[in-house]
Amino acid sequence: GITSLLANGVYAAAYPLHDGDYEGENVEFNDRKLLYEEWACYGVFYKYQPIDLVRKYFGEKIGLYFAWLGVYTQMLIPASIVGIIVFLYGCATVDENIPSMEMCDQRQNITMCPLCDKTCSYWKMSSACATARASHLFDNPATVFFSVFMALWGKQGLSGKNIGDDPRFIAEYEARVLEKSLKKESKNKETDKVKLTWRDRFPAYLTNLVSIIFMIAVTFAIVLGVIIYRISMAAALAMNSSPSVRSNIRVTVTATAVIINLVVIILLDEVYGCIARWLTKIEVPKTEKSFEERLIFKAFLLKFVNSYTPIFYVAFFKGRFVGRPGDYVYIFRSFRMEECAPGGCLMELCIQLSIIMLGKQLIQNNLFEIGIPKMKKLIRYLKLKRQSPPDHEECVKRKQRYEVDYNLEPFAGLTPEYMEMIIQFGFVTLFVASFPLAPLFALLNNIIEIRLDAKKFVTELRRPVAVRAKDIGIWYNILRGIGKLAVIINAFVISFTSDFIPRLVYLYMYSKNGTMHGFVNHTLSSFNVSDFQNGTAPNDPLDLGYEVQICRYKDYREPPWSENKYDISKDFWAVLAARLAFVIVFQNLVMFMSDFVDWVIPDIPKDISQQIHKEKVLMVELFMREEQDKQQLLETWMEKERQKEEPPCNHHNPKACPDSLSGPAPSHAYHGGVL
Amino acid sequence: GITSLLANGVYAAAYPLHDGDYEGENVEFNDRKLLYEEWACYGVFYKYQPIDLVRKYFGEKIGLYFAWLGVYTQMLIPASIVGIIVFLYGCATVDENIPSMEMCDQRQNITMCPLCDKTCSYWKMSSACATARASHLFDNPATVFFSVFMALWGKQGLSGKNIGDDPRFIAEYEARVLEKSLKKESKNKETDKVKLTWRDRFPAYLTNLVSIIFMIAVTFAIVLGVIIYRISMAAALAMNSSPSVRSNIRVTVTATAVIINLVVIILLDEVYGCIARWLTKIEVPKTEKSFEERLIFKAFLLKFVNSYTPIFYVAFFKGRFVGRPGDYVYIFRSFRMEECAPGGCLMELCIQLSIIMLGKQLIQNNLFEIGIPKMKKLIRYLKLKRQSPPDHEECVKRKQRYEVDYNLEPFAGLTPEYMEMIIQFGFVTLFVASFPLAPLFALLNNIIEIRLDAKKFVTELRRPVAVRAKDIGIWYNILRGIGKLAVIINAFVISFTSDFIPRLVYLYMYSKNGTMHGFVNHTLSSFNVSDFQNGTAPNDPLDLGYEVQICRYKDYREPPWSENKYDISKDFWAVLAARLAFVIVFQNLVMFMSDFVDWVIPDIPKDISQQIHKEKVLMVELFMREEQDKQQLLETWMEKERQKEEPPCNHHNPKACPDSLSGPAPSHAYHGGVL
Repeated sequence: GITSLLANGVYAAAYPLHDGDYEGENVEFNDRKLLYEEWACYGVFYKYQPIDLVRKYFGEKIGLYFAWLGVYTQMLIPASIVGIIVFLYGCATVDENIPSMEMCDQRQNITMCPLCDKTCSYWKMSSACATARASHLFDNPATVFFSVFMALWGKQGLSGKNIGDDPRFIAEYEARVLEKSLKKESKNKETDKVKLTWRDRFPAYLTNLVSIIFMIAVTFAIVLGVIIYRISMAAALAMNSSPSVRSNIRVTVTATAVIINLVVIILLDEVYGCIARWLTKIEVPKTEKSFEERLIFKAFLLKFVNSYTPIFYVAFFKGRFVGRPGDYVYIFRSFRMEECAPGGCLMELCIQLSIIMLGKQLIQNNLFEIGIPKMKKLIRYLKLKRQSPPDHEECVKRKQRYEVDYNLEPFAGLTPEYMEMIIQFGFVTLFVASFPLAPLFALLNNIIEIRLDAKKFVTELRRPVAVRAKDIGIWYNILRGIGKLAVIINAFVISFTSDFIPRLVYLYMYSKNGTMHGFVNHTLSSFNVSDFQNGTAPNDPLDLGYEVQICRYKDYREPPWSENKYDISKDFWAVLAARLAFVIVFQNLVMFMSDFVDWVIPDIPKDISQQIHKEKVLMVELFMREEQDKQQLLETWMEKERQKEEPPCNHHNPKACPDSLSGPAPSHAYHGGVL
Repeated sequence: GITSLLANGVYAAAYPLHDGDYEGENVEFNDRKLLYEEWACYGVFYKYQPIDLVRKYFGEKIGLYFAWLGVYTQMLIPASIVGIIVFLYGCATVDENIPSMEMCDQRQNITMCPLCDKTCSYWKMSSACATARASHLFDNPATVFFSVFMALWGKQGLSGKNIGDDPRFIAEYEARVLEKSLKKESKNKETDKVKLTWRDRFPAYLTNLVSIIFMIAVTFAIVLGVIIYRISMAAALAMNSSPSVRSNIRVTVTATAVIINLVVIILLDEVYGCIARWLTKIEVPKTEKSFEERLIFKAFLLKFVNSYTPIFYVAFFKGRFVGRPGDYVYIFRSFRMEECAPGGCLMELCIQLSIIMLGKQLIQNNLFEIGIPKMKKLIRYLKLKRQSPPDHEECVKRKQRYEVDYNLEPFAGLTPEYMEMIIQFGFVTLFVASFPLAPLFALLNNIIEIRLDAKKFVTELRRPVAVRAKDIGIWYNILRGIGKLAVIINAFVISFTSDFIPRLVYLYMYSKNGTMHGFVNHTLSSFNVSDFQNGTAPNDPLDLGYEVQICRYKDYREPPWSENKYDISKDFWAVLAARLAFVIVFQNLVMFMSDFVDWVIPDIPKDISQQIHKEKVLMVELFMREEQDKQQLLETWMEKERQKEEPPCNHHNPKACPDSLSGPAPSHAYHGGVL
């Protein structure tokens, strides 16, 4: 077939032609032009997409992608509105937030223990005021409500019913299946065969497994490297003389580290994409479909790990294994594990998340997607020019459609588009508790994204071969998976990363007057500076201008004057229990609520099945009617047959008269003809 | 229609007739007889049921019930095998179980605080030896594994794929839907209308809500009553002089209380059944289906609460709000809350569960199901006899089939059968962690149950009108719900009711030499008897033969000699945190595993859809073929028509010759007739 001819290089390429040019004054009207005007320009971002036309022109699969993208973007609107409200609530309440007020209070000067050995000195709590205030923006009760909302949004939102929003697809699919099924059946058999003969391809699988594990290890190693960079950077800056530098060590370190992370992520994304493709090739899957699914699975796994590892680190591991003053934990015997800001790690998580998400979107999606194709186009154009410098002008004139299209990019599949959106969906749902504005940014990005992809498909790509599709396939399962993961991760973020639970515990277990006054003091343990291991005490203890006996650090431990000093205290266990209890409540609440929503809102699958039935019925009726007509005609004809052997009918022997004398017209005419 | 005639009492009853008698020597062979011999007798309990025949004779719905019952019973086999193994493991390890050994050890005589005020005196730990040893049978590591297993079993087991085990149903259903759909469509519309006009029936809904809440309150009140009975009974027995009585107070009290519970449950079950029916009647649902569903929902809710409330109490509330010596919690100012046995509440939970489950099965299912119908039959028989004493003998001889069947019970629907099984499924899954033998007893019960129901349907009921059914309907959702509930409940039973977590915590946090030695001592707090509130101290403190300064009680509290004595201790919070962590791990582990199983084992739905497609294809092919045949015949006929106007065909003008001279025979005959 054509594929083999292409493989043998007999043909350079095979592709359907575009309807015609999409711009220029003397261009007759065509679908492509219509799409370009009605769909592929930013001016119409507020309009619904002409999905039918897209499907008609590009085929069902691509139509489905854009339909899904549209639905997803639409769903982001409520999410981002709620997110904005939550953020504004944070801004509004930042001034009556007692903990941050206490931290900023100069009068109660709490002396904190040094953040690094020797070089760092003691520091005043109030110097972390800004962080504390900022972290309140994301670490307030509204966030809890928001993450419940988003967990439901993630679990319910994309659970099929929105994909099904455009029932025409399903209907059409079901109708076409009737003709197509036999082929499908055989294909299914094939895939079965593939499953059966998996032993033959064991080495390939082994290679896959090994290399995937290796690449995940690489990712982890890089993240570790960045951590070490951060630690040493902090130590270095701490030695810096100018107070301005030292005052915002944390910000600079975090920011630079995150940017490094970002660059690494973007580079590795490309690398991993290629590797995944290569790995899938050596697997030699039998059908196109299984190839795509295996590729997607690998690519997703790698890119997911790549994108989220640094965020997971900040959310759940940073500052947990610090140890305590006088007995710190060291990695490689020299680097002391880094702590979180006094305002909690949530702030850093937020910075991490926002920079990576926005950076990824801006650089990867938009710059790459606009820049690279344009460049490629230019290169091809120049090459062409070099080939035919003389009669270039008129050759352009005389160009045939297929020649023009040949200069366009070939269609490379929807996987990158989907992948981009899925990773974004992850950013929006997984850690939303720490960054309520994520949906908003996602929304803005997608509004551009839709038109960008549209432009690409209309103007820069060869027309893809129309492919039939029932739904978004494996992506749907991945979305479901992320939705489930989001519930548990948000539960952990709120209970372990944010200070929500400690505040509650303080309020109901320890607070004297039922207010948050004294909370900050309660979260800090005391350390007697005389207990520093030798060589770890700060070099200039008088940096703050007075001598320090007791410094404070953020942990729940016994004070120096208790009999078993620096042991984990009762409060620690109480808070831990509260955190875990919250996780259980949160998770089961969300699960119950989403089941309830499922139960209240009858979801599409039912409708689909009804659709199927309806179609069956219609089809059957149709057949029945046709059959009846035929039957009638046949009967009338058979009758005539009978009459040939019978005597002509008259009132003498009425029994011989065929009942159907008052039959359909033709039989009459014919009857008359005989007499 | 017939229904209105029945309503107006024109007819006494309308029912399909049985095929004939099922026993007696001179009976011609018939399906009923066959069913009676091959299906409805205990002799064939090991055989598969002849589901096809059942479906053919009783209709699809009843066939489906028996198919489901069969599948469920089959599934109980592995469950009960594992359960037996777990139980045997418990029996085998009871002697090297250090905690129970320590409790039974006479040498270290631990003096426990009195179990009730005044009348009860101090008692020796070793006197609870039996309980401790017994509780190990169910409270051992194997139980944890078992409850994971059962949680998966419950979640996966009945998730559709086993119901679908008998694909004939689905296939047949799908095929019949084609003819039936139109009616269905209209019915759907009706139900929609019902949904719309819910406002009109608001009072009915209100009545429902109020009375359901009321009945649930009644259930709770009864349980509370039983608790008070238990408390006062214990106090009364404690005053008893004979040591033999006092040694096994706990057993007697628990046993009697449980039996009271059991009786109440069985009685209320009947009452609630009627009430649910009445409530659904006043709701006036529009379709038969919605009536059934509403009834089932209500009945299930009430019976569920009724059956499980006492068990929930023992599992999660008993002994949690006891207070501490010197500061006990009292209800109604006079009854001190009861504590759990030193071996943990799991033992009592096990007793509760086993007695209620077995008692319910034996009394309700079998006695009621065999006894009541037999009695009714007898009564009807006697009544009949009284009506026609003289020529009774020959009247029996001359009896027509419909007369014979009239004496049988009318078919009352499958709801009770299903309900019984669902409640049993609840017993098997919800608290399996505390009673590994539950599946075994369920299995034994069901093996009898199947044949019992079969007998009933074949011999004692009028032949029911065949009803078409796709699946077990709302029952499936209820099963799913119980499956989900089972996961979380088992997690809580293991972590909070059993001593599994405290043991682990002791082993890894406190144990000196990495063994369980000293665990019992660690779980007991000390109380200084001088701190008893006045009037609560035991009357004869010297009951044990020596004077007591310090008595022990099961709780994690500060000792009398610490500065804040009797406060909740650090250990308490540590253990609590561990328990909660376990719940999270357990729940998510099971969820993940069941998703994984889903992913690995492709479930039936796919097969169904393929089935549907296959059928569509076949149908279409069939129609096509028929059409073609007809088309052919028509063409030949049309041809003949044409020939009428045409000149007869000969070799002069061959173009006029119809190609189909070699056509079907009739056309030839006809042709000849014309010439």
